[in-house]
Amino acid sequence: MMLKTHQCGEISKETIGQTVVLNGWVQRRRDLGGVLFIDLRDRSGLVQIVFNPAFSGDALKIGDRSRNEYVLAVKGTVVARDPETVNTNMETGEVEVQITEIEILNAAKNPPFFIEDGIEVDEMLRLKYRYLDLRRPEMQKTLMLRSKTAKIFRDFLDENGFIDVETPILANSTPEGARDYLVPSRVHPGEFYALPQSPQQFKQLLMVAGLERYYQIARCFRDEDLRADRQPEFTQVDIETSFLTQDQLLEMMEELVVRLMKETKGIDIPRPFQRLPYAEAMGKYGSDKPDLRFGLELVDLSDLLANTEAKVFASTIQNGGQVKALNAKGCGLWSRKEIDDLTPFAMRYGAKGLAWIQVKDGEMKGPIVKFLSESELNAIKERLQVEDGDLLLFSADNKKVVADVLGNLRLKIGRQLGLIDDSVYKFAWVVDFPLLSYDEDAKRYVAEHHPFTRPKEEHVAYFDTDPGQILAQAYDLVLNGYEVGGGSMRIYNREVQEKMFTALGFSLEEANEKFGYFLEAFEYGTPPHGGMAFGFDRLVMLLAGTNNIRETIAFPKTASATCLMTNAPGPVDDNQLEQLSIRIARKMPAASKN
Amino acid sequence: MMLKTHQCGEISKETIGQTVVLNGWVQRRRDLGGVLFIDLRDRSGLVQIVFNPAFSGDALKIGDRSRNEYVLAVKGTVVARDPETVNTNMETGEVEVQITEIEILNAAKNPPFFIEDGIEVDEMLRLKYRYLDLRRPEMQKTLMLRSKTAKIFRDFLDENGFIDVETPILANSTPEGARDYLVPSRVHPGEFYALPQSPQQFKQLLMVAGLERYYQIARCFRDEDLRADRQPEFTQVDIETSFLTQDQLLEMMEELVVRLMKETKGIDIPRPFQRLPYAEAMGKYGSDKPDLRFGLELVDLSDLLANTEAKVFASTIQNGGQVKALNAKGCGLWSRKEIDDLTPFAMRYGAKGLAWIQVKDGEMKGPIVKFLSESELNAIKERLQVEDGDLLLFSADNKKVVADVLGNLRLKIGRQLGLIDDSVYKFAWVVDFPLLSYDEDAKRYVAEHHPFTRPKEEHVAYFDTDPGQILAQAYDLVLNGYEVGGGSMRIYNREVQEKMFTALGFSLEEANEKFGYFLEAFEYGTPPHGGMAFGFDRLVMLLAGTNNIRETIAFPKTASATCLMTNAPGPVDDNQLEQLSIRIARKMPAASKN
Repeated sequence: MMLKTHQCGEISKETIGQTVVLNGWVQRRRDLGGVLFIDLRDRSGLVQIVFNPAFSGDALKIGDRSRNEYVLAVKGTVVARDPETVNTNMETGEVEVQITEIEILNAAKNPPFFIEDGIEVDEMLRLKYRYLDLRRPEMQKTLMLRSKTAKIFRDFLDENGFIDVETPILANSTPEGARDYLVPSRVHPGEFYALPQSPQQFKQLLMVAGLERYYQIARCFRDEDLRADRQPEFTQVDIETSFLTQDQLLEMMEELVVRLMKETKGIDIPRPFQRLPYAEAMGKYGSDKPDLRFGLELVDLSDLLANTEAKVFASTIQNGGQVKALNAKGCGLWSRKEIDDLTPFAMRYGAKGLAWIQVKDGEMKGPIVKFLSESELNAIKERLQVEDGDLLLFSADNKKVVADVLGNLRLKIGRQLGLIDDSVYKFAWVVDFPLLSYDEDAKRYVAEHHPFTRPKEEHVAYFDTDPGQILAQAYDLVLNGYEVGGGSMRIYNREVQEKMFTALGFSLEEANEKFGYFLEAFEYGTPPHGGMAFGFDRLVMLLAGTNNIRETIAFPKTASATCLMTNAPGPVDDNQLEQLSIRIARKMPAASKN
Repeated sequence: MMLKTHQCGEISKETIGQTVVLNGWVQRRRDLGGVLFIDLRDRSGLVQIVFNPAFSGDALKIGDRSRNEYVLAVKGTVVARDPETVNTNMETGEVEVQITEIEILNAAKNPPFFIEDGIEVDEMLRLKYRYLDLRRPEMQKTLMLRSKTAKIFRDFLDENGFIDVETPILANSTPEGARDYLVPSRVHPGEFYALPQSPQQFKQLLMVAGLERYYQIARCFRDEDLRADRQPEFTQVDIETSFLTQDQLLEMMEELVVRLMKETKGIDIPRPFQRLPYAEAMGKYGSDKPDLRFGLELVDLSDLLANTEAKVFASTIQNGGQVKALNAKGCGLWSRKEIDDLTPFAMRYGAKGLAWIQVKDGEMKGPIVKFLSESELNAIKERLQVEDGDLLLFSADNKKVVADVLGNLRLKIGRQLGLIDDSVYKFAWVVDFPLLSYDEDAKRYVAEHHPFTRPKEEHVAYFDTDPGQILAQAYDLVLNGYEVGGGSMRIYNREVQEKMFTALGFSLEEANEKFGYFLEAFEYGTPPHGGMAFGFDRLVMLLAGTNNIRETIAFPKTASATCLMTNAPGPVDDNQLEQLSIRIARKMPAASKN
């Protein structure tokens, strides 16, 4: 077997005159007047190889038998192409290899789709033949980017004294684990392992164990109904430290991100990243993961319109709601139809309708204008810095709906107006999340993050007066409208932990029953600690410039958690179930999976 | 909160005069005439801190409240110790820190065992309180060694163009998967995922996908009855390449191992590693994973004793068995009792008894001597290079039993005679494994490795004549009597694959049914490929110098696959089972787990 001396992509003007051996796949072949041209592909790229009766001898005959995706080993000499045949679309387009020997290492059936970038093929077919889909250069580049990204994380964390520790996959079911994947135990009939939703408990216990700095690129599992950017198993870069403040941790993580962006994209990200309080993020952008590449901020008008004649506004405000608006610059020139089309979009996010004012030819137009007084209109104009050609979009509702509606309109219009520069990576920390939120149904507070999240030191006193006011030492890293990471400092102090449980309405007995050994562990000398996790798949997705998380995973699953290549999940033998002491309660009706 | 400026272990003569802040745990405290001495411990080591009324002020009073395993933040000045109080057993024993400020970051209950190396505590208790066990310096060192080992693997593989690809944990049940861990699907009632026993199929498909070089530090799962060095989930460094020969791959892997040994142990391992054919390993050492740190080789005597009067020897040989012996140098001086004690040991490995000859005072003694002729005794003497004081141990049985009995006697006696230097790391490749073995029960050949293992090119012809004679392109990496890795070149050629299936007694239809999509994938242009996997836990175990695999895993499971810390596996709610469409067929009797 002739083994490669070079990668296809390495053939260049520098290798002219050299005899090289290449191994790769036939990308395409052309026969021009008895001369055979093949574009040979390997992981590194393409190069043109030439079989000509003048120098190829028998190799031409053998080469002629090859078809697309055949695997070849060829030997030949690198030569410059004639100027008129230089292919500037090909990295190696200035040269070609004149073949003198060939071995067909393997034949190939005609693949069900072309192996090339930008194919328009049903994703189901691509997933069934994933081993062919992954031959496409863009897929290989993404896998290499993923590998490189992992390496950059590891190198940085290693340099900073983090220890890579593997935590169990066969773990225990946790109290919040309604959607755990379960694994029946053969040795302990009727008992189950659970696949971890995250290594949270283990990483905190490693801090109790005095490891001080831990990381792991960890597989996590969540048996949820899947959305476009969710997978049943996903990967997070899991990090925990002791003896650091939130600020110190965030600074270190910024350094990591800056290096990552430099090494993967060649982009210098300025530091420090913006620290955006949660309340401000929700207020200005209607989102706790705002896209900060453009302005188009939400503006609160509630103080101006509390007593307006526009009933829908006034009554909302009087009932504790808000009226906010955003000024879509230039959209005042849109047609009535274009403006009306925004209403169903807004309604998707909970709006009952969409009030708007069009500013055109110096006039404010729109169904609600007649209900607003001159002075109200002037105040709105001033606050929203209104100019001719603007379109003002209003939302009057409770805080959550207003944020959702205007936050999503902001994104839609920002995209439509071309305000978003796709080459920009805009990171920010969202900080000062509320520690607790009040659950109206359960009539009690629930933890926003988890019950071990540390409150801001200066807010601990609010446990006794107004728990809803407490802000947490919790933070999310956002990038271009996505949450790419998040974490918190953890409670390590027994007294604070007890206040937290009290606020959540648990007695200490209930807490012990619920969290068992984990709380016990904390009594043996727990250091101050905290950490975060990066959503690795999503981060790679953003670095790769795609919006499909499946592109970043070698063997992903569909929205119904199926692998179309292996057909997992599948039926198993009865004796396997017998050994595991379980029975199937109800089978799936025979139907096709997707 | 005062945050550390230094690690405890960094305090040294170089830091004398500096003001430092340390964070750590109280290892022990002593009060000597009103002066308080605390050994403070963090991940890096211990340092003595001193509270003295002369310089500590209130800090002494606060420090005095601390107990073992309290978490402290202290500030003070590094000073040299008086020459008479220098502690040479402590890395930082030449200095101490005079404390001026202290904060008790956390209190601690008295731990159930001392946090120190070499404790003699029931492992069950250590596993229950794993977060305390992991505070012990020897455990932390092992976890750091594990992290470092992973880093060395990754760096090397990255430098050599390997791409780190994550393959699914929620995978498909494979035909050999009788002992798969299963995961019921919620979305597809009655169907199951299986946790992978290895990423074998995925890594081969990544070669079909043209990735060329893949690696992954992969979690694998096997629901087997556990032995001392097995865990239900384990980690392997999984490697696959295309377009390399076996020799090229082994050479690259040797380079990796040499670097690993240099960077973890500071040891230079000479290259190339010995390549030991399987037949020779079994012949000389009675093992396919021989400990090559010492000789004491097995010697075949079958040709000498085929017609001896010693019936037990002659009849064994005449029935197709063997007679082999090893010469335990110097053991001829053992007492009769010491020699007799070897018999039950030999019987554990299948021997029916143990024949021996003691060479003492120029005479050969032992129950079998009288059945052997003068010339037979002389021939034995010559072949075993017998001297006065030797003890000859014989095994007469079929090949497998002889190898087991003498192979294990060899290890036992080598250890007893002090022939094994524990500081030596002796790597070798065992190569030329048989491709097939004949299953007497099934009356057919079975694959020794797996049905995709490539035969030696020059042996392919034996498929038609004597399949049992075919040697495989398969290899194991052995170290000091352990298999630390293994792999094979894979069949990529349809014709050879069909011959293999025929030899295994499958029709092509049966093969397709069994291996389905995997065989189909191979028809689309599969490159020559092969790979190996290192047993990561076992390798770390050997590097750490322990023989307990659980010491190398942060949160291991017991022999009954239980985690004593989290109590996994455990019961789950009925509604979880309902959602998964399964029922428990039979519960475990209420009994304690271990």
